Amino acid sequence: MARKQPVAIVFDTFGTVVDWRGSLIADLTAFGKTRGIAADWPALMDKLVAEFGIKGLTEQDLVHINLGWHRLNGWPDSVPGLTRLKKQFVIGPLSNGNVSLLTYMAKHAGLPWDMIFGSDLFGHFKPDPETYLGVAKMMDLAPDQVMMAAAHNGDLGNARKCGLLTAFFPRPNEYGPHQKRDYSAERDWDIVAKDIEDLAEQLGV
Amino acid sequence: MARKQPVAIVFDTFGTVVDWRGSLIADLTAFGKTRGIAADWPALMDKLVAEFGIKGLTEQDLVHINLGWHRLNGWPDSVPGLTRLKKQFVIGPLSNGNVSLLTYMAKHAGLPWDMIFGSDLFGHFKPDPETYLGVAKMMDLAPDQVMMAAAHNGDLGNARKCGLLTAFFPRPNEYGPHQKRDYSAERDWDIVAKDIEDLAEQLGV
Repeated sequence: MARKQPVAIVFDTFGTVVDWRGSLIADLTAFGKTRGIAADWPALMDKLVAEFGIKGLTEQDLVHINLGWHRLNGWPDSVPGLTRLKKQFVIGPLSNGNVSLLTYMAKHAGLPWDMIFGSDLFGHFKPDPETYLGVAKMMDLAPDQVMMAAAHNGDLGNARKCGLLTAFFPRPNEYGPHQKRDYSAERDWDIVAKDIEDLAEQLGV
Repeated sequence: MARKQPVAIVFDTFGTVVDWRGSLIADLTAFGKTRGIAADWPALMDKLVAEFGIKGLTEQDLVHINLGWHRLNGWPDSVPGLTRLKKQFVIGPLSNGNVSLLTYMAKHAGLPWDMIFGSDLFGHFKPDPETYLGVAKMMDLAPDQVMMAAAHNGDLGNARKCGLLTAFFPRPNEYGPHQKRDYSAERDWDIVAKDIEDLAEQLGV
């Protein structure tokens, strides 16, 4: 394989690995059933998204909304794709969530991380370079031995500025019908895949 | 179950989870074969242990000796026991090794940790309270929601001083024929088990 291979791959989590919108809708629906409340939960979520706008609803907002829930589920390809990648690479989330939230979430969703790179380990949130470079430092690796994987072009742009390898795959339904961007790769990322299983395929595992 | 149940269980690693002496002997034996060197590697290891003495050969010495090897294996009950415990508890190593060493070691030995509590996360080595209490803080738990599991009475004594629950199981062959202590529980630890599988059994998983 001519392509430069990473030693570790870190994943943006909200949207990229877990389907926060779909999970919250399912959770609210189940809650509504136990309390006898019939509501259009998808419409509520979409209103929330539309009201805040994609630019306004940051990853930190999502962390806050979900804090204490720990019940988000992976996309269908997340667990099988990560399980394949784990055979050859160190894998972990690199998220603005903290270790505690990301650990409980991984247990619920069955995400087979090797290590949890919560923002509290670095004392910084993405896009601060201390997060991307902190993973490399913690794992005794050079920046280009770490690959950032995300469904968000912006996250990858910041990772590339720090010298990390980059992998993109789209999550066109992350925000439901109000999604306005990140339908496709906007730059020449090192890998452009369909999803996490395809990422594993392209990395030869 | 009347016993107080933890949310997270952290494990001393060198000796408690991985068999450093047996693994190093096997590794040196394999190395010797490829180089045509026939030597009494167990005797060499035992001489090293005897020379340094159990008190002299600290966990940090072992980390240093093993750094870069990443090839230590679990005791026979480690992977099956941890796999059972992982179903109900957050599990991780709490070791004086750093995140990098412990992560690569876990991949080699197949240890299914949820989170790696390396000493670099706390900027302290055991027995400093910052390590035991650091786990509780990082996981948003009270100290008595965390259980320290170790084959070393001393480690458990320090954990108990910080308010953690304690679990002991012996590793009578950790140091080979020169082992002088830790054959049995020396205090009324919250759980005294035969090994990690028995710990899972006693915790009802």
